[in-house]
Amino acid sequence: MITDSSELDSLEAQARARLTPGAYAFIAAGAEDEISVRDNVVAWQRLRLRPRVLRDIASIDTSTTVLGAPVATPIMVAPTGRHRNYHPEGEAATARGAATADAAFVLATSSTVSFADVAAEKRSAPQWFQLYMPPERDVTEDLIDRAAAAGFQALVVTVDQPVAGSSPRARRDPLEVSPDVRHVNLAGQPIARNAYDPSNQAVVRFPATFRDLEWMARRPIPVVVKGVLRADDAVRCVEAGARAVIVSNHGGRHLDTAMPSAEALPEIAAALAGKAEVYVDGGIRRGTDIVKALALGADAVLVGRPPLWGLAVHGADGVAAVLAHLRNELVRTMALCGASRLDELTADLVAPPRY
Amino acid sequence: MITDSSELDSLEAQARARLTPGAYAFIAAGAEDEISVRDNVVAWQRLRLRPRVLRDIASIDTSTTVLGAPVATPIMVAPTGRHRNYHPEGEAATARGAATADAAFVLATSSTVSFADVAAEKRSAPQWFQLYMPPERDVTEDLIDRAAAAGFQALVVTVDQPVAGSSPRARRDPLEVSPDVRHVNLAGQPIARNAYDPSNQAVVRFPATFRDLEWMARRPIPVVVKGVLRADDAVRCVEAGARAVIVSNHGGRHLDTAMPSAEALPEIAAALAGKAEVYVDGGIRRGTDIVKALALGADAVLVGRPPLWGLAVHGADGVAAVLAHLRNELVRTMALCGASRLDELTADLVAPPRY
Amino acid sequence: MITDSSELDSLEAQARARLTPGAYAFIAAGAEDEISVRDNVVAWQRLRLRPRVLRDIASIDTSTTVLGAPVATPIMVAPTGRHRNYHPEGEAATARGAATADAAFVLATSSTVSFADVAAEKRSAPQWFQLYMPPERDVTEDLIDRAAAAGFQALVVTVDQPVAGSSPRARRDPLEVSPDVRHVNLAGQPIARNAYDPSNQAVVRFPATFRDLEWMARRPIPVVVKGVLRADDAVRCVEAGARAVIVSNHGGRHLDTAMPSAEALPEIAAALAGKAEVYVDGGIRRGTDIVKALALGADAVLVGRPPLWGLAVHGADGVAAVLAHLRNELVRTMALCGASRLDELTADLVAPPRY
Amino acid sequence: MITDSSELDSLEAQARARLTPGAYAFIAAGAEDEISVRDNVVAWQRLRLRPRVLRDIASIDTSTTVLGAPVATPIMVAPTGRHRNYHPEGEAATARGAATADAAFVLATSSTVSFADVAAEKRSAPQWFQLYMPPERDVTEDLIDRAAAAGFQALVVTVDQPVAGSSPRARRDPLEVSPDVRHVNLAGQPIARNAYDPSNQAVVRFPATFRDLEWMARRPIPVVVKGVLRADDAVRCVEAGARAVIVSNHGGRHLDTAMPSAEALPEIAAALAGKAEVYVDGGIRRGTDIVKALALGADAVLVGRPPLWGLAVHGADGVAAVLAHLRNELVRTMALCGASRLDELTADLVAPPRY
Repeated sequence: MITDSSELDSLEAQARARLTPGAYAFIAAGAEDEISVRDNVVAWQRLRLRPRVLRDIASIDTSTTVLGAPVATPIMVAPTGRHRNYHPEGEAATARGAATADAAFVLATSSTVSFADVAAEKRSAPQWFQLYMPPERDVTEDLIDRAAAAGFQALVVTVDQPVAGSSPRARRDPLEVSPDVRHVNLAGQPIARNAYDPSNQAVVRFPATFRDLEWMARRPIPVVVKGVLRADDAVRCVEAGARAVIVSNHGGRHLDTAMPSAEALPEIAAALAGKAEVYVDGGIRRGTDIVKALALGADAVLVGRPPLWGLAVHGADGVAAVLAHLRNELVRTMALCGASRLDELTADLVAPPRY
Repeated sequence: MITDSSELDSLEAQARARLTPGAYAFIAAGAEDEISVRDNVVAWQRLRLRPRVLRDIASIDTSTTVLGAPVATPIMVAPTGRHRNYHPEGEAATARGAATADAAFVLATSSTVSFADVAAEKRSAPQWFQLYMPPERDVTEDLIDRAAAAGFQALVVTVDQPVAGSSPRARRDPLEVSPDVRHVNLAGQPIARNAYDPSNQAVVRFPATFRDLEWMARRPIPVVVKGVLRADDAVRCVEAGARAVIVSNHGGRHLDTAMPSAEALPEIAAALAGKAEVYVDGGIRRGTDIVKALALGADAVLVGRPPLWGLAVHGADGVAAVLAHLRNELVRTMALCGASRLDELTADLVAPPRY
Repeated sequence: MITDSSELDSLEAQARARLTPGAYAFIAAGAEDEISVRDNVVAWQRLRLRPRVLRDIASIDTSTTVLGAPVATPIMVAPTGRHRNYHPEGEAATARGAATADAAFVLATSSTVSFADVAAEKRSAPQWFQLYMPPERDVTEDLIDRAAAAGFQALVVTVDQPVAGSSPRARRDPLEVSPDVRHVNLAGQPIARNAYDPSNQAVVRFPATFRDLEWMARRPIPVVVKGVLRADDAVRCVEAGARAVIVSNHGGRHLDTAMPSAEALPEIAAALAGKAEVYVDGGIRRGTDIVKALALGADAVLVGRPPLWGLAVHGADGVAAVLAHLRNELVRTMALCGASRLDELTADLVAPPRY
Repeated sequence: MITDSSELDSLEAQARARLTPGAYAFIAAGAEDEISVRDNVVAWQRLRLRPRVLRDIASIDTSTTVLGAPVATPIMVAPTGRHRNYHPEGEAATARGAATADAAFVLATSSTVSFADVAAEKRSAPQWFQLYMPPERDVTEDLIDRAAAAGFQALVVTVDQPVAGSSPRARRDPLEVSPDVRHVNLAGQPIARNAYDPSNQAVVRFPATFRDLEWMARRPIPVVVKGVLRADDAVRCVEAGARAVIVSNHGGRHLDTAMPSAEALPEIAAALAGKAEVYVDGGIRRGTDIVKALALGADAVLVGRPPLWGLAVHGADGVAAVLAHLRNELVRTMALCGASRLDELTADLVAPPRY
């Protein structure tokens, strides 16, 4: 279905043609001038590979664990919202595609499919649940309990959206609200009003602090903090109980000109080495990007927009195809870099751009 | 009226459509190849933000003081000339818009509305008066006395235009001279002939020196020096009695390829720390620009062209809308950076561009 | 036939017009986004020359030796495959053109002309044989023996293609398979199936290791390792018995965003100084590129695509013309840099780009 | 005639419209890809000015001396050839324009007007004579004697053209040879055949060495060496008797990707400080370029192409207008930088580009 990188790019064009303008814009949108959207991609591109030769690569192994759970690939599906806007089966299809690829799947707060229906798609790879931290702890606790009961094995707490960014693109092509596409896991709760809505100016919505994180870290399933760009904050997250940190600028959707995640990764990986897992998302489109991320210290990567392109065009099969394609590229890049296991992807494989 | 950053950009296009070519060119013009005009904007864009997460941002406070006067926002209206060329109410409308936004307003020497009529628009935020230092001290003293009597609380002395720059754009589309648009505060004085006129080749017009600044600093109201790009000069200005310095290259209007103010700011802020206030203008178009400026040591910023776009299209309401929009963006950016007060905007929030 | 650098560029356009789309794409193709294809060229362009003046350049001598064999020029023909797709005489014509220019010629594994017919074109300059290291040592040994018997004086072992890269361009315009264009030196051997085929996804094909290199270094003719981008690997190659190393990213054909060879060269040249010869290929299109390469430590350069353009348009004469043109440019550049012999091309002639 | 920098740019367009394609190409041509032609201009543009404020600039003085001769301006006319191809009066008109501007004029070897007729245009500012060093010393000595007898006060020895570069542009639009446009000062001498001719491949023509320079430095008039890009060579030139050095890459005409003169200047100025004068040419188009050059250590600058545009369009008046315009820009830039004399243009006025 996807045979080379140009077909991944053309998948985006196909998704755009098939979706409503508002649905496509909701996927593509970045904050303000979309500088961080572009820079996220470019920052990986500009890093240069220093491949090793004549290593034993007779068998290439991309398997690893995330928070102790074995997965076939260090590529996870990032949490993104409202999948029924892109495909009738919504998050169930996305989860099925991830399961087919044996890739970890992160369900968003703004899921349009119920916990149970998503959980039914789980196979070997873990499913995690992403949530914001609204002020109402009882709401949060209920959400966590229901997610955990459904089988979600970790909480991914998004911390880089205390308020929503402003996206001219999303405002120009607003997401059409369909009565039958609802945040079904939030029914009747105030947080339902707070999901990403670029028409909603800067109201403080999720003013969580490290104290809230400490509370959340005491819930029954482990906590991953998503949206950290500084080593000092990453260390504080771990001290507050986080088991992993996702280096991310939220795909450039909230704070334009935020540092590209590729550039923030090394200092955070260095600070957390041996203390917590480190993942990264933002702009990952090629197997070479994944190798660079892992070489710079990430334990895994997440991809957000590409699976949605697959979902929009081919449903669950499209999601699986995108993940399989990226894993194929990872395998090829590892071979070309002389690495047969992920732990052989070390920092000496990457050089900074000269200019 | 302005809901996102793209609408601030389109406001410029609307102003252009509404103004005469000469009036628009007078706003837009930069010296020579307009390299500094562009670089002023780009220099802010390229700085990268390193946001903090999980900080207490339940309430965001943008209030501060400038020269001791409380203001709701660290965004001031920079001095620009001849507003009646853009709107019938001229500087009175601009001042009203600033007052509505509780933002400090700086009236230019080349105002086309009288001191009294501008001062009548004052509400809480201060009004300051910008002037050049012509050789004739009696003229200057008279101007200062009249401005101070009208209630202007500080003098902003522009020092980066000892001669006028040359603008091919302004020469191509010259400002039409209308008999009823006059520099009313300069009536009958020789300085009236000296205001920015790009058709006027390099005659030395305002050959003031630090000695003149010392004299001016002894007038009854405090002096702010505008147009400094070097730490050594900034220190000398303060030693000569200045209470604040505005890091500026005059919006790129006089010396092309002058250092962008974003790049000159850090060394000046470091040199004046604890000794004088530091403001900056030039290329500020986004809330992220403002956060970067304050993080790099500015106590406040000034915006020049954007309020004129608002003035040209919507009069006083347009000015107020531009200032409100920028303050909204400042609030959102502070929230996204984990800062609830301006003094939490510190240098670690900003990283230089990698390439 | 080629009088200046613009005519070398237009030769590519002529070749494109004359070849089938698949044949042209096979020459031009790079991996993925072809970033390395472009960067290879740009990396040489951006280096700056610091020419010497008033040196004695009455006679300019470009002669040198490669692995002890005298050649008139430090420009070698890189191994490239399937020449009968470009010209009926195939590799025989290419070899004749190289011989005319007294330039070393490297025959590819995927030659479409027999060892004997290529060897018949040899004159003074050496002919070498490029090969991959398939797992079957008996096949390799047979190949080596036949090449050596035919007079090929060295083995160029390509180590940067353990698997094939993925080229969207080559997939879009696939190389037409013609029954009479065969890998004649591989007839009946499994390696014939393994030559560069971008439709063939990442199967590990040439999983050779340093141990295989040690074995190969014990064959009767010396070994040159092609495709090294790191000093540590270059040193290991020499320790394993290699007599020379070619700094190369395979013309950007396999691992996109691999470091440009111009940037990898200095560290490798420094590491091998006095121990082995160092050559470089990738993006060399001008005499100034060659001077920079030699100044940065290369003993010779290889060119891949330009001779193929000459072959496609003018056959053997075109190959000779390309090589003569590049040597003319080398002579002129040496004169303009104040160097009369290749050993006067030292690192102080080159400065890195400022921006 | 020229009122701002855009009119200097449009003068080039007017010259192009008026000249034959070959004549225009002869002016504009650079070697190979014309990278150095562009970079010469861009390198000045990208340097940033750090202007001083509140300095005494009541009177701006651009006068200086070159080799002891007083001139009103540090802007000299660089040697360029064959002016009768651009204007019927040829070098006589150029010399008259320079004299009008009180600017030093350098006559080229390939002048199409006699020594006497050029010398007749001299007024206060000096005239110098540019020459190559052909192997035949008697020819050179005769040239020098005749130039000195005509009143030329210094020899400008061009050392960066031991062979001619290759210009695809000049080859595409060859200079038409007119029987009445001759190198009149070279009549009957072999050097006449050797002047810049891009159709003439890399023959060594002016293989002069430091020994030849020593000989030339013993002639009756002082020697200036033109075409040095390295401090070590500049020092050797002075040790061999040169009284001044011109940092230059020959306007990018011979060695493409040679270091821009703006970048080579600082190291040479530092090496020759107190020992010899340093001039610079290449890409100077604005008053800001001149201030940067002088701030970085140049005692004067030379301009090559701009006076030819003036000559082609307006004859002697055009040359004078170009020089007056550049001096006006120099005056304005000095005022805007707070400098009233050339010796106040020091290195702290310039900062390197950030990116």
